[in-house]
Amino acid sequence: MNPEAIRIIVTGGTFDKHYDEIKGELTFTETHVPEVLKRARVSVPVQVELNQLIDSLYMQEANRQSVLDACKRAPERHIIITHGTDTMAETAKLIGSARLDKTIVLTGAMIPYKILDSDALFNFGAAFAAVQLLPAGVYISMNGRIFDWNRVRKNKTLGVFEEIQE
Amino acid sequence: MNPEAIRIIVTGGTFDKHYDEIKGELTFTETHVPEVLKRARVSVPVQVELNQLIDSLYMQEANRQSVLDACKRAPERHIIITHGTDTMAETAKLIGSARLDKTIVLTGAMIPYKILDSDALFNFGAAFAAVQLLPAGVYISMNGRIFDWNRVRKNKTLGVFEEIQE
Amino acid sequence: MNPEAIRIIVTGGTFDKHYDEIKGELTFTETHVPEVLKRARVSVPVQVELNQLIDSLYMQEANRQSVLDACKRAPERHIIITHGTDTMAETAKLIGSARLDKTIVLTGAMIPYKILDSDALFNFGAAFAAVQLLPAGVYISMNGRIFDWNRVRKNKTLGVFEEIQE
Amino acid sequence: MNPEAIRIIVTGGTFDKHYDEIKGELTFTETHVPEVLKRARVSVPVQVELNQLIDSLYMQEANRQSVLDACKRAPERHIIITHGTDTMAETAKLIGSARLDKTIVLTGAMIPYKILDSDALFNFGAAFAAVQLLPAGVYISMNGRIFDWNRVRKNKTLGVFEEIQE
Repeated sequence: MNPEAIRIIVTGGTFDKHYDEIKGELTFTETHVPEVLKRARVSVPVQVELNQLIDSLYMQEANRQSVLDACKRAPERHIIITHGTDTMAETAKLIGSARLDKTIVLTGAMIPYKILDSDALFNFGAAFAAVQLLPAGVYISMNGRIFDWNRVRKNKTLGVFEEIQE
Repeated sequence: MNPEAIRIIVTGGTFDKHYDEIKGELTFTETHVPEVLKRARVSVPVQVELNQLIDSLYMQEANRQSVLDACKRAPERHIIITHGTDTMAETAKLIGSARLDKTIVLTGAMIPYKILDSDALFNFGAAFAAVQLLPAGVYISMNGRIFDWNRVRKNKTLGVFEEIQE
Repeated sequence: MNPEAIRIIVTGGTFDKHYDEIKGELTFTETHVPEVLKRARVSVPVQVELNQLIDSLYMQEANRQSVLDACKRAPERHIIITHGTDTMAETAKLIGSARLDKTIVLTGAMIPYKILDSDALFNFGAAFAAVQLLPAGVYISMNGRIFDWNRVRKNKTLGVFEEIQE
Repeated sequence: MNPEAIRIIVTGGTFDKHYDEIKGELTFTETHVPEVLKRARVSVPVQVELNQLIDSLYMQEANRQSVLDACKRAPERHIIITHGTDTMAETAKLIGSARLDKTIVLTGAMIPYKILDSDALFNFGAAFAAVQLLPAGVYISMNGRIFDWNRVRKNKTLGVFEEIQE
């Protein structure tokens, strides 16, 4: 089981939110993914691609298309997408419908990586294993579960992802 | 893909080491696994079993046998074992040789969960996804990789796990 | 130097901001001051009084008056006020003008206590020592400095407090 | 109150202990004081002097003498010494007996800075304010209190500093 390279396509989301102490609000400045990879001591070859840094509530169709294009362009067969949770399922649907011959796992965080008690590192670890073990397809990895792209939604009241009937 | 229950067998290791401010050294008091599960917001049914809290350098054959017995006894088919890294491969060999019809993933940490920059949460997340996706067998999940029990060792100079020829 | 009791009047501010993962924004739920006191292992008698939990940008005159009233009412001669930084100097002016015979130190944080790299704990420690050592009067303790209430402003561009001529 | 420069003499202690993931133990590699100063956003001029990085249990007379020499040599009148807690009171006695015309505050931590729930940042903040407010003399700032050098000991059973009769 020689590890294949993994491409990580960064889109922002809560995972990468950062506290701007001058503005007094959460914004984006850069991605924490390289820091996470170092901290996790991963020994799998990884390419990090900064696609965008955006709150997924503000994603337009062009934003989602840009993620899909990045997936198509990627030479790697294993892709992780870090994404805001609010519209993660929508982006998964767009990419899933494209039926690429790649394993693509979307993940994110309910609490920013830089806040104590963040779930970001756990979710990223789960996605990192999942992308290496799943067959080609598009998946969401959140709450310790793996969901198919066409059977998942975020329950915004509870703040958890859940399975839906196709 | 309805999630099956996962049993988590805790044995201690660096993952659970805690700073004792009176003694001024790292010791064990309790496991951080329940806190990790809450933080990760997992929605998969989980049973946490405290088997032992020990530095794996001090594990005797009886300690390893106790872990194997816990695996045999477990009604769940998916088992995660948190374990010290120094002899994780030895315990994996003992359990692997038993050829149980279960998926068993050992994981741990190079830096304790309670220290900033710990890899514990990433490793646990990776093991959590891996145990749900792998066929029956015994594996080590460290450094973002999945290793078969009979082809893995810890490189103690570099502090990473690596594959060996069987 | 037997330690006199200190009253801590909590008003919220960035210090106590908390990430609400359902709303996806920073809000208030409770104060972190009791947790901070435990973590700091203080052996000085302390009374924590929750006056309000508010972003100081939204403080009205009634809010500031409520803080002044709490200072007047307090039986202790040593008072720390945790406060948002944006209008900390205004509240200091109101209380300073009242010329109470007490030592009152306002402090806060540029980055919430629950975010990695927060300055909250340092600022609180500095205020804790300052309130025990200063003569009666009203002060702001931020950026490792002690400012008189009538000679301080927040430089909102740089995010630091600075001295002004009276 | 224009801020005078502060010299920070680093000697190590629990404050600066670091987890060595290869050896699996707490050791010293460098001091965290510059990181702490940045995080605290101090606007007081500061000189950091690395005197030694040692567990204070292993300090010999020469180690303590070296700290005293650094205090004598320092052009600043305000000095903070970061020090292990176990023999902090002994070093304070040596320096206190020298009757230098400077304000010198020793502080440290019960839990290393890099461990969650560390008291290091609070203690350092308290020392930072105290050194600017106290008259010439030698003091220990721990547990939110300020102790005179000749009336303090560490209660090793409880892990707190306490006043003794001279």
